[in-house]
Amino acid sequence: MTKLLQYIVYCKEVSKTMTTSLEATLFNELEQLFLIDPHTHIDPHAAASKTLADIMGYHYYTELAHSAGLDKGLIEEEGLDPKTKVGRLVEKLTDLDNTIQVHWLLDMCREFFGFTDDRITKDNWENLYDTALAKMSEENWEQQVLEKSKLEKVFLTNDFDDKLEGFDTNLYIPCLRTDDLVFHFLKKSVRNRLNAASGIEVGDAASFREATGKLFAHFVSNNVKACAISLPPNFSPAKVDAGAAAAVMKRTVKGQRLTSTEQEMLSSFVFWTIAEFCSEHKLPFDLMIGVNRKVYENGVYQGQDLFDKRVSLLQYKQLFNAFPDVTFPVSVLGSTSNQELVSYSWIFPNVVTNGHWWYSNIPTYIEIDTRSRLEAVPRTKQIGYYSDMYKLEFALPKFRMYRRVLAKVLATDFVVGRGWTEEQALDFGKQILRGNVETIFNV
Amino acid sequence: MTKLLQYIVYCKEVSKTMTTSLEATLFNELEQLFLIDPHTHIDPHAAASKTLADIMGYHYYTELAHSAGLDKGLIEEEGLDPKTKVGRLVEKLTDLDNTIQVHWLLDMCREFFGFTDDRITKDNWENLYDTALAKMSEENWEQQVLEKSKLEKVFLTNDFDDKLEGFDTNLYIPCLRTDDLVFHFLKKSVRNRLNAASGIEVGDAASFREATGKLFAHFVSNNVKACAISLPPNFSPAKVDAGAAAAVMKRTVKGQRLTSTEQEMLSSFVFWTIAEFCSEHKLPFDLMIGVNRKVYENGVYQGQDLFDKRVSLLQYKQLFNAFPDVTFPVSVLGSTSNQELVSYSWIFPNVVTNGHWWYSNIPTYIEIDTRSRLEAVPRTKQIGYYSDMYKLEFALPKFRMYRRVLAKVLATDFVVGRGWTEEQALDFGKQILRGNVETIFNV
Amino acid sequence: MTKLLQYIVYCKEVSKTMTTSLEATLFNELEQLFLIDPHTHIDPHAAASKTLADIMGYHYYTELAHSAGLDKGLIEEEGLDPKTKVGRLVEKLTDLDNTIQVHWLLDMCREFFGFTDDRITKDNWENLYDTALAKMSEENWEQQVLEKSKLEKVFLTNDFDDKLEGFDTNLYIPCLRTDDLVFHFLKKSVRNRLNAASGIEVGDAASFREATGKLFAHFVSNNVKACAISLPPNFSPAKVDAGAAAAVMKRTVKGQRLTSTEQEMLSSFVFWTIAEFCSEHKLPFDLMIGVNRKVYENGVYQGQDLFDKRVSLLQYKQLFNAFPDVTFPVSVLGSTSNQELVSYSWIFPNVVTNGHWWYSNIPTYIEIDTRSRLEAVPRTKQIGYYSDMYKLEFALPKFRMYRRVLAKVLATDFVVGRGWTEEQALDFGKQILRGNVETIFNV
Repeated sequence: MTKLLQYIVYCKEVSKTMTTSLEATLFNELEQLFLIDPHTHIDPHAAASKTLADIMGYHYYTELAHSAGLDKGLIEEEGLDPKTKVGRLVEKLTDLDNTIQVHWLLDMCREFFGFTDDRITKDNWENLYDTALAKMSEENWEQQVLEKSKLEKVFLTNDFDDKLEGFDTNLYIPCLRTDDLVFHFLKKSVRNRLNAASGIEVGDAASFREATGKLFAHFVSNNVKACAISLPPNFSPAKVDAGAAAAVMKRTVKGQRLTSTEQEMLSSFVFWTIAEFCSEHKLPFDLMIGVNRKVYENGVYQGQDLFDKRVSLLQYKQLFNAFPDVTFPVSVLGSTSNQELVSYSWIFPNVVTNGHWWYSNIPTYIEIDTRSRLEAVPRTKQIGYYSDMYKLEFALPKFRMYRRVLAKVLATDFVVGRGWTEEQALDFGKQILRGNVETIFNV
Repeated sequence: MTKLLQYIVYCKEVSKTMTTSLEATLFNELEQLFLIDPHTHIDPHAAASKTLADIMGYHYYTELAHSAGLDKGLIEEEGLDPKTKVGRLVEKLTDLDNTIQVHWLLDMCREFFGFTDDRITKDNWENLYDTALAKMSEENWEQQVLEKSKLEKVFLTNDFDDKLEGFDTNLYIPCLRTDDLVFHFLKKSVRNRLNAASGIEVGDAASFREATGKLFAHFVSNNVKACAISLPPNFSPAKVDAGAAAAVMKRTVKGQRLTSTEQEMLSSFVFWTIAEFCSEHKLPFDLMIGVNRKVYENGVYQGQDLFDKRVSLLQYKQLFNAFPDVTFPVSVLGSTSNQELVSYSWIFPNVVTNGHWWYSNIPTYIEIDTRSRLEAVPRTKQIGYYSDMYKLEFALPKFRMYRRVLAKVLATDFVVGRGWTEEQALDFGKQILRGNVETIFNV
Repeated sequence: MTKLLQYIVYCKEVSKTMTTSLEATLFNELEQLFLIDPHTHIDPHAAASKTLADIMGYHYYTELAHSAGLDKGLIEEEGLDPKTKVGRLVEKLTDLDNTIQVHWLLDMCREFFGFTDDRITKDNWENLYDTALAKMSEENWEQQVLEKSKLEKVFLTNDFDDKLEGFDTNLYIPCLRTDDLVFHFLKKSVRNRLNAASGIEVGDAASFREATGKLFAHFVSNNVKACAISLPPNFSPAKVDAGAAAAVMKRTVKGQRLTSTEQEMLSSFVFWTIAEFCSEHKLPFDLMIGVNRKVYENGVYQGQDLFDKRVSLLQYKQLFNAFPDVTFPVSVLGSTSNQELVSYSWIFPNVVTNGHWWYSNIPTYIEIDTRSRLEAVPRTKQIGYYSDMYKLEFALPKFRMYRRVLAKVLATDFVVGRGWTEEQALDFGKQILRGNVETIFNV
């Protein structure tokens, strides 16, 4: 009986090793890979964080803390100093320690600042803050983060009137973001920005096209590798008749009121024009489908948007058919849209799966979405993951979360389930994580 | 070789222990917890079952038996005695023994009546029936069930004109159910009940508000802890303009026909008024979203309702924004709505996740829904489970089913996946199961 | 330490055996079962493949290869010889080797042609092609495939004007496919085919009914066991008023243009008439709900259809209520529809779950859909799987994929999860796989 007990304890340890050894091996191998992050919101002029407030000010933490009861005023107070802000957010962390987002935070603090405690609490945060501040103040901090995170290149999200100056576009790769043009062209400020950026006074559909062409030329000459847009659930782009487009554009530039039908027509026309330039310049057009803006009107900054799952990729039927030579890396906001994405990517040569976006960027949904993609979409047509980060430090924990899931699916479904060798599985994983970013975006 | 074989058999046993030991430990600990069941349909004047027919007459069994081919007339026959009814239902149990609902039944029979067979069959049911009858006839049966089930308090579902008399409202906690007011106010009988319950002759919008205020006062003075309503998939409450509300209420009390737009307005107005009183009295408002009534017109009693998954929480945008100080514990009928629920709870401070309702109350969906909630919603904003039971005996197997899933998710995703200690995982589990019921409903 | 290492290696082997032994046992037992395949597109006059091109020409391979970049012209070229076609498809297989569909292909090649390599490549395909050709040229190839695949009977998909001659209807069981009648009756060619097949000149609603009756009589006298139809997501059948039906049928046979409302009425009327004949002849009516045709207009043959997940079984409320004596085996295209299917089958006696269709026919979705069905739908009301195959060779790998998932769910959820014996689990599995096909279709 003593021997039995001894065996049990023994086997228990052995078993832990066994069940996870394959996954762990794959995970560790995937962790060695240098990455190109194909979608972020990094400011190339201030890519890394300066204080812990840059990290904890990320909307994932402010919105979760606010959701758990923290007064918005306490974190969005005018002139709030970063340390006080962090202290206030820390008060709410105990209510959030279950979230994967706080797990990212701990992961960053451990990897970058040598934090060793279980939790960030009101007793240990000041020390952490100061340690972080010291590290972040080192001259080559940005370089340290890039290296430690194995980040080789980072895609940006650039306003259409970004001058794209003062940074290395080979490291921080421009991506032309077009939401303002498509959905806010009614605003005088947006039209003024287009006029200024293009040097063309947009007065009608023809000059709009010309101005847009100038933007593309500017971006193309600065190493742009993708165009991108986020889209509300009810958007369904259609080709607009030239006459109708001319009429609605005229009314727009005159500052006249548009009916909702005319507004849709305007958005469609602008969107379609952009797709045409993507075609001309062989640029992939990232579609991020499904976000409703300002659903929670009094939410914190960037914490107001939600979704409506009643959306279908069928809304993009005309687009996908009209532009066979434009690659559309598609992200969906809801996991319930994932099967459509898998199926549309399996059928349309120009549709590819792209990462795990926002509310779907949690392990539960990443896992089921990844399993289906890995077994039903051509392996060349899947972009595994992007960080969507605002500060460089986030790539490490976010990609690690993804790599863990990826390793699990590869181990379970491919090595065990289909008898692939570890090497075959690993090759597949590397292609998903990096290889396809190179081929699809022509990096 | 003999030694090898011996080892294999040996390790097989050991392995069973190992793989389940962590889950089992957590499950056993969670089983020790005394519960507050935050949503049931218990009749406090007849809380426990009197015969096995009270248990097997639950719509889950009648509707499944009917679905499997049992004639409705055989179970809904006028004056049918309970033993015959059970006998008739037993005939169909072999076609249903795969269902989790029949698993609950076996669990109850084992725990409460010492049943030891594998299945309930035509050969053993009479004996079971008689044993159950004897147990249920014991004077303190209700108390026995409460104790064995570790039920400390039980929320009710009370009609708006319930007198709330003759029971201990500290054990059986009132909950004001408002479906009749919101969706059936056109019926004279409902208006009469309101007049009688409030002592006010409702003749217009103002007197309706006054009468509703009386209901709330009555419930509040009787320890009410929540207001509740179930909602069809196409409902989208909106604030109704005072003039329009007055006009439609006038037409309603006069017994005039309403257009469908007017009916929606009436429902919205009543609903909004109730939400205002929830705000005034700091009462959480349980929203159970997504049920279509009487889809199967010839179904058995309570076995006629189904759902339409084309529903979005976006329909509640205006409500969630208008009542920041009302907590809305939200239940969704379809698992495809779960990610929206997770996301809305993560963003809106006043939205919390509430249990696993009806068609989603099966392990497959509980597991995936629980995994996503546990990793993305603040831990203070999740009500893990409610039994929805009509008779006390159901709390035990239903909560046990949930606790099993909860233990699995805590073990896999938190202890193994994130390196939490068993104690940390257990604390989290207890908060989900009970702690949050106390804080959210102020029990 | 050496001993430890030795133990680890040892236990690793043992563990592999253990964790999979239960699943493997169940899988192996399920593999022994002789099958009735309840839905295929087999041509009974050419049931087995003649060359590897018959297998690799299946739309799953052509559409995936095209999606991965293969020019449509290269595989749909006029007069293309089969060997060249296979060679061209093989070029793309490396981009698809992750897909479950290519896994089926390997499985077939291994089982039927003794293929032993890891992958089909440009270096080994010719040899494989020739080996396959030799095998397929054997006189009794069809018989060999049936036996090796343990196929006892195979349901067909017959055009309404199929003569049903020249084959054994006891082996290849007729199924009356009605898409053309319901959705293409506006086409003169379809009306002509009906006239010819029925021997009745359809001129109005009455003669349409008479002609349809003739079709049913013909099929019934030829051992038909089911009626079937695939339905677009926006279809919602309703009983059409006799007068309206007469009017629209008149306009139709006169070749007049119909409004979209009239077209819907026509489809509803034809559909309803067919359901009435199913009732009269006690024929199950397979509904395959959710496919949009020709979404990708330039897709390869049979690789153009996709879906819109915004569909609900609520659209069939009137139908399910109107025909209580017609059994409707329902397939859904999207996994997001599965919970509705589970719930409607749990409530409606005449709704049963039917297989895993098309884009849902991949292990990720089969697993979650199977888990929920097995635990919530009466065991008599579930048709586990059909192959949907065009050539006989596909039954083996497709059913095997399903059996693997089924074994896993039975092992995990029933034997381990609920303490069922292996025999009980196996009985359940056999009923799902075969028994219910016999009872539901009266084979």
